[in-house]
Amino acid sequence: MISRAFSKVNKNQLIKTVTTNRIVSCNNRNNKSQLIQSFSTSTENNNNNSNNSNEQNQQQQQQQQQHQKEQQPKKLIKELGFFGGLVAAGLGGFWVIDMIVNDDFDSFTDKFRTRLPESERKKRPKIVILGTGWGSLCFLRKLHTDLFDVTIISPRNYFLFTPLLVGGTTGTVEVRSIMEPIRKYCKRADADDATFYEAECLSVDPVSKKVKCFDNSAVKGEVSEFELEYDHLIVGVGADNQTFGIPGVKENACFLKEINDTRNIRDKILDCLETASYPGQPEKEIDRLLNFVVVGGGPSGVEFTAELNDFLQSDLLKTYPLAKRINVTLVEALPHILTIFDKKIIDHVEKRLQSSNNTKIWTKTAVVGVREKEITVKNTSTKEESVHPYGLLVWATGNTPRKITTQIMQSIGSDVQNNRRGLVVDDYFRVAGADGIWSIGDASINPLKPLAQTAQVASQQGRYLGRLFNQLADEMNNDLIKKRENPEAHKEQQKEKQQQEKANLFNSITGSNKSFEEAVKEKPLFRYKHMGTLAYVGDHQAVAEFKGDHSTTVSEGYITYYLWRSVYFTKLLSFRNRALVSFDWLKSSIFGRDISRG
Amino acid sequence: MISRAFSKVNKNQLIKTVTTNRIVSCNNRNNKSQLIQSFSTSTENNNNNSNNSNEQNQQQQQQQQQHQKEQQPKKLIKELGFFGGLVAAGLGGFWVIDMIVNDDFDSFTDKFRTRLPESERKKRPKIVILGTGWGSLCFLRKLHTDLFDVTIISPRNYFLFTPLLVGGTTGTVEVRSIMEPIRKYCKRADADDATFYEAECLSVDPVSKKVKCFDNSAVKGEVSEFELEYDHLIVGVGADNQTFGIPGVKENACFLKEINDTRNIRDKILDCLETASYPGQPEKEIDRLLNFVVVGGGPSGVEFTAELNDFLQSDLLKTYPLAKRINVTLVEALPHILTIFDKKIIDHVEKRLQSSNNTKIWTKTAVVGVREKEITVKNTSTKEESVHPYGLLVWATGNTPRKITTQIMQSIGSDVQNNRRGLVVDDYFRVAGADGIWSIGDASINPLKPLAQTAQVASQQGRYLGRLFNQLADEMNNDLIKKRENPEAHKEQQKEKQQQEKANLFNSITGSNKSFEEAVKEKPLFRYKHMGTLAYVGDHQAVAEFKGDHSTTVSEGYITYYLWRSVYFTKLLSFRNRALVSFDWLKSSIFGRDISRG
Repeated sequence: MISRAFSKVNKNQLIKTVTTNRIVSCNNRNNKSQLIQSFSTSTENNNNNSNNSNEQNQQQQQQQQQHQKEQQPKKLIKELGFFGGLVAAGLGGFWVIDMIVNDDFDSFTDKFRTRLPESERKKRPKIVILGTGWGSLCFLRKLHTDLFDVTIISPRNYFLFTPLLVGGTTGTVEVRSIMEPIRKYCKRADADDATFYEAECLSVDPVSKKVKCFDNSAVKGEVSEFELEYDHLIVGVGADNQTFGIPGVKENACFLKEINDTRNIRDKILDCLETASYPGQPEKEIDRLLNFVVVGGGPSGVEFTAELNDFLQSDLLKTYPLAKRINVTLVEALPHILTIFDKKIIDHVEKRLQSSNNTKIWTKTAVVGVREKEITVKNTSTKEESVHPYGLLVWATGNTPRKITTQIMQSIGSDVQNNRRGLVVDDYFRVAGADGIWSIGDASINPLKPLAQTAQVASQQGRYLGRLFNQLADEMNNDLIKKRENPEAHKEQQKEKQQQEKANLFNSITGSNKSFEEAVKEKPLFRYKHMGTLAYVGDHQAVAEFKGDHSTTVSEGYITYYLWRSVYFTKLLSFRNRALVSFDWLKSSIFGRDISRG
Repeated sequence: MISRAFSKVNKNQLIKTVTTNRIVSCNNRNNKSQLIQSFSTSTENNNNNSNNSNEQNQQQQQQQQQHQKEQQPKKLIKELGFFGGLVAAGLGGFWVIDMIVNDDFDSFTDKFRTRLPESERKKRPKIVILGTGWGSLCFLRKLHTDLFDVTIISPRNYFLFTPLLVGGTTGTVEVRSIMEPIRKYCKRADADDATFYEAECLSVDPVSKKVKCFDNSAVKGEVSEFELEYDHLIVGVGADNQTFGIPGVKENACFLKEINDTRNIRDKILDCLETASYPGQPEKEIDRLLNFVVVGGGPSGVEFTAELNDFLQSDLLKTYPLAKRINVTLVEALPHILTIFDKKIIDHVEKRLQSSNNTKIWTKTAVVGVREKEITVKNTSTKEESVHPYGLLVWATGNTPRKITTQIMQSIGSDVQNNRRGLVVDDYFRVAGADGIWSIGDASINPLKPLAQTAQVASQQGRYLGRLFNQLADEMNNDLIKKRENPEAHKEQQKEKQQQEKANLFNSITGSNKSFEEAVKEKPLFRYKHMGTLAYVGDHQAVAEFKGDHSTTVSEGYITYYLWRSVYFTKLLSFRNRALVSFDWLKSSIFGRDISRG
C-alpha cells in the first residue's frame, strides 16, 4: 500500500513541477513581447536624443504603465494557478497519507462494489450495535450495510473523539468540534441506511436474542421502552469510571469521559476562582477552593494536569490575581505515573510537571475516602493517612464494566463470564457462552491476549470485525435460514453448545451451523498493530513511545508535540472535525482560552 | 468626525495606489534588464544563424530559465506586498467605520488623558455596578475607571451579545462566540482595575447606601454572602421573562434570554425528534412531540421561528425522516406580529413565514394555561378556548422587572416607584426618590420619555451615563467630602429631600450638594439616536426599518440580510467575537448545523 502511496505522492510532485514550468514559460513569452516593445522605444531614443526627449520619455512611461496594467491581471492569474497547484498537490498527498494512517483504502474500493439485489435483501441478518464509541463506529464504517439489517442503539447520538476530550476541560478545543453526529454514518453512498435509536440498553436476553432499551433523556414519549430482536449483537458500549467503591467519589468528583464532564470541570475551575475572590473570604478557605486534586497518574490524569497548568499559566494568571495560589496535586497509588511508558519518559514527565510551582505529584498515595470538601489519602508504604481539603476533584483512575455489560455477563453465567474487566471474547471477538453476541473495545477482554483499553485498540478491533462480517455475510445468511427453518432444533443445539462451551471455553463454537463455523475459523485472526503511545505533558511539549519488535523509540519535547497534534489531526474522522479543531487550536493560541463561566 | 474618517479612508486608498505603482516600476526595472540580456542574445542569433544555432538556443533558454528562477521569489514578494497593502487598507478603513458606528472615538482620545495623581485617588467615590449586560458594560467602557473606585456585581462573569442569541438555539453561531469575559473590561490600559464579584444582588438599602450580595453558583465558600457600600449605584440588571402569571409557564417553557436557554432549546429540539423516532411510537404522540409552539410575535419570537425553520429545511430534513412532520406555530395575542414594524414589513414577514408548510401563525390568540404536554389558548375575538399538545414550548413575550429591581422599588416606596416596567428615572437616569442610585437599560423607565427595551437603547444610555460620570467626577468628589464631614446633617437632608421629591417628582434633587446639582443640570440631556430596527426572517432574508424625522425607509430580502449580518458584525464588541462569529457563520454554511445532542 505504502509504495502505491508514494507513487501517488511523486505524481503530485510532478504536477507541482509541471505547474511551475508552465509559469516559467509563460513569463518567458511576456518578456519577449516586452522585449519587442521596449526595443522599439529604445531605438527611437537613440535616433532623436536631442528634440523633446522628455515627451518621448513620458510616452514611453505611459506605454509601459499601460502595458503593466494589461499584464497585472495575467500575472495574478498565473500566481494563483501556481498556488492552486501547490494546494492541490498538498491536499492530494494528505488524502493518501490519511488513507494509509487510517487503514481506509477499502472505503475507496467499496465504491465499486456490486450491491445486493433487492430480492436477497429481505432475508438479511439483523445486526444490533450497542454504543457509538470507537469500536462501534469503526465497525459500522467498515460494514457493508446493504448486506445486513443494521440498528445502532446508544444514549448519545454522536461519536466523541475522546483523545482530545481533555482539551475541552480548559477550552483548548471546544467540545462540539470533537463530536460527530452518528446519523452521518448511518447514511452511506454505497450502502443502505442503518437505523439509529437514541436509547440506553437495559438488558440483553442471549437465549431469545432480544435487547430491551429505554429512553434515559428528558423528553419522554408515550413509548419510552422497546424491545428489538437480533441475529448478531455487537457490544461496543465502552466502560464506566472506576471508583474502587470508595464512598463519596460518585457524588463529589468530576470524571473525564463524557461531554458534560468537561463542561462541569471547566465551570468548576472558574467557579472556585470566583468564589475565592469574594471579599472577606478567609485565607484558609481560599487555599481550599484553589486546591485542585487529580486522582490517577495514567495518560488522562497527566494530560489533564498538563492542560490545567497551561490554562493557569497562559490565561488565568492574567485575569485572576488569586490564580497564583492555585495548587494542582496529581495523586497516584503506584510508585510512578504513566507506568505504561518507558522509564526515560516517566522521569522526563515527572520533572516537567513539577517544574511548575503550582503542581505537585504524590506517588505511592491511595485515596481512601472522599467528602464534599476534603479527601483522605493514605501513603501505601508508610500506611499514614492524611486529610486534604480541595475545591476541585478530578477522577481519572481507569475503567470498570458498565451496568449493561455486567447484566450480559450474568445472563450468560458467571462460570463462563468471570473476568472483572468485561465480556470474555475469543480470537474473533465472539462472546464466550453466547450465540451471535460479539464484543469489541473497552467492554470486552480476550484473557489469552489482553490489550490496553485505548481508542487505538477499539478502532482496530472495530475495523477488523466489520471486515470479518462482510466476508461472512453469506454464511451468516445460510446459518440464519437454517435456524429459521427449524427453530426448536436450533434452541436444543444452543443448550448443548453452551454446556459444551462451559467445558472447553476457547474451542467454543458459536453458530450451530458447522459451515458457518468453518467459515469463521478460516478467516485470519485479529492482529493488533501498535502505532505507538502519545501523551501531552503541557507547555507545548509531548512524549511519544514507539515499540518495535526488538527496540523501543522514545521521544519528547516540542517536535513530539507537533507530532502529537498532527497524529490526532489525521485520526479525526471527518473533514468537518479537522477544520473545527484546527480553528480551535488557532483560536486558543491567538485569543487565549475563554474564561467565561457559561 | 465623519470627515476625519473619510480623510483616513482616502489615506488608505493612497497607500494602496502607491503600492501598485511601486510594483509597476519594479517590474519595469526587471524588464529593462531582461531587455539587455535578450537583446544581446538575439543579435548573436542574427550574426551566425548558420553554425550551431541549436546550441545558442539552448544557452539562451538556459539563461532565460535561470533568470526566471532568480525572478520567481522577487515576483512573489511583490504580489504579497500588493495583497498586504490591500488588507491593511481594508482593516484601516474598517477600524474607522467601526469607531463611527459604535461612537467610540473617545476610547481613542482617552489614551492621551492625564491620570489622577495617587494622592487624589484615595478619596475616590465608590461606584457599584449591578449587571454585565449592554447598559452596564457600555457604562463601564466609557467610564474613566481611575477617577472612581469601581465594583461590578453580576451572577454571570461575561457579557452576552444578545442580538445573536437566537442563532445559538440552532447552532448557526456557537454561544461561546458571543460571550466576552467581563474581566477583560475591568483591566484598562489608561485606567485602574475595576473589581468584579460573581454574585447575585439580594437587596439594596438606599438610606445606608449598601448592597447585599450572595453566591448563587454551585461552588460555595465559607463566605457566600457579603455587603458593599456605595456612593453611586448603577442598576443595569436588565429584566426577567414576562409570564403574565400564567400557571405552568416557568416549569414547562423554554425562554430566550441566557446561554443555558439556547442549550436547552437546541437539546430539546433534537430530543423530541429522537423520541419521536422510537419504534412503535403512536402517530398521535409523534405529532405531539413534533409540534413546536413559539409564544410571542415580537422580534425574538419571529427570529426564533425563522431560525428553527432554517434548521429544519437545511439540516434536520436531511437526517431525520420524521422532520417533515415538524409543525411550528407562532402564537401572538395581538392582531399582527412584529407590531413595532411598518405595516408593509409585517405583511412581508407574515407571508414569508407561512410560505413554509411547517409554519403557522396564530394571531389574536392568547395563552391561558400551560401543562407539561399541552397548552391552552383562547381566541381574543371569539373567546373560544382550545387545547394543543406540544413537544417544545418557547416563551418570548417580553420583560418584567427582576426580583432585585422590585426590591429596590419597594425600599424606596411605591408612592415614587410605581411603574410596572421598572425603576422610574429622570432625564439623567437618576432613580427617583433615592440618593446616588442610577439605572439604565431594561431595568429602568423614564415615564416622560419611554423607550423600547432593546440592546440599542441600553448601550446608548450606558455610554451617555459613563461620559456624564466622567464630567461630574469632581463635583461627585466634593459632594462626597461634604457628606463625610457631616454625615448626620447629610442624613437629615436626605429625609427632607425624599419628602420633597415625593411632592414634586421630576424636579427631584439627588445630591444634597447644590453645586453638584447645578453641575448635573448643566450637562446635556440624553438623546436617543434610533439607528433603525432589524430582524432576521429566515432563508437568508431579513427586514429593516429606518425611521427618519419625517420619513420611514423599509427594506426586506437578501440584501437586507447581509446588511443585518454586517451591522451585528460591527456591533460585536471585540475582535475575538467578530472572528469567532464569522467563522461560525462560515462553518454552518459549509458543514451545516451540528445535530449532536450534547
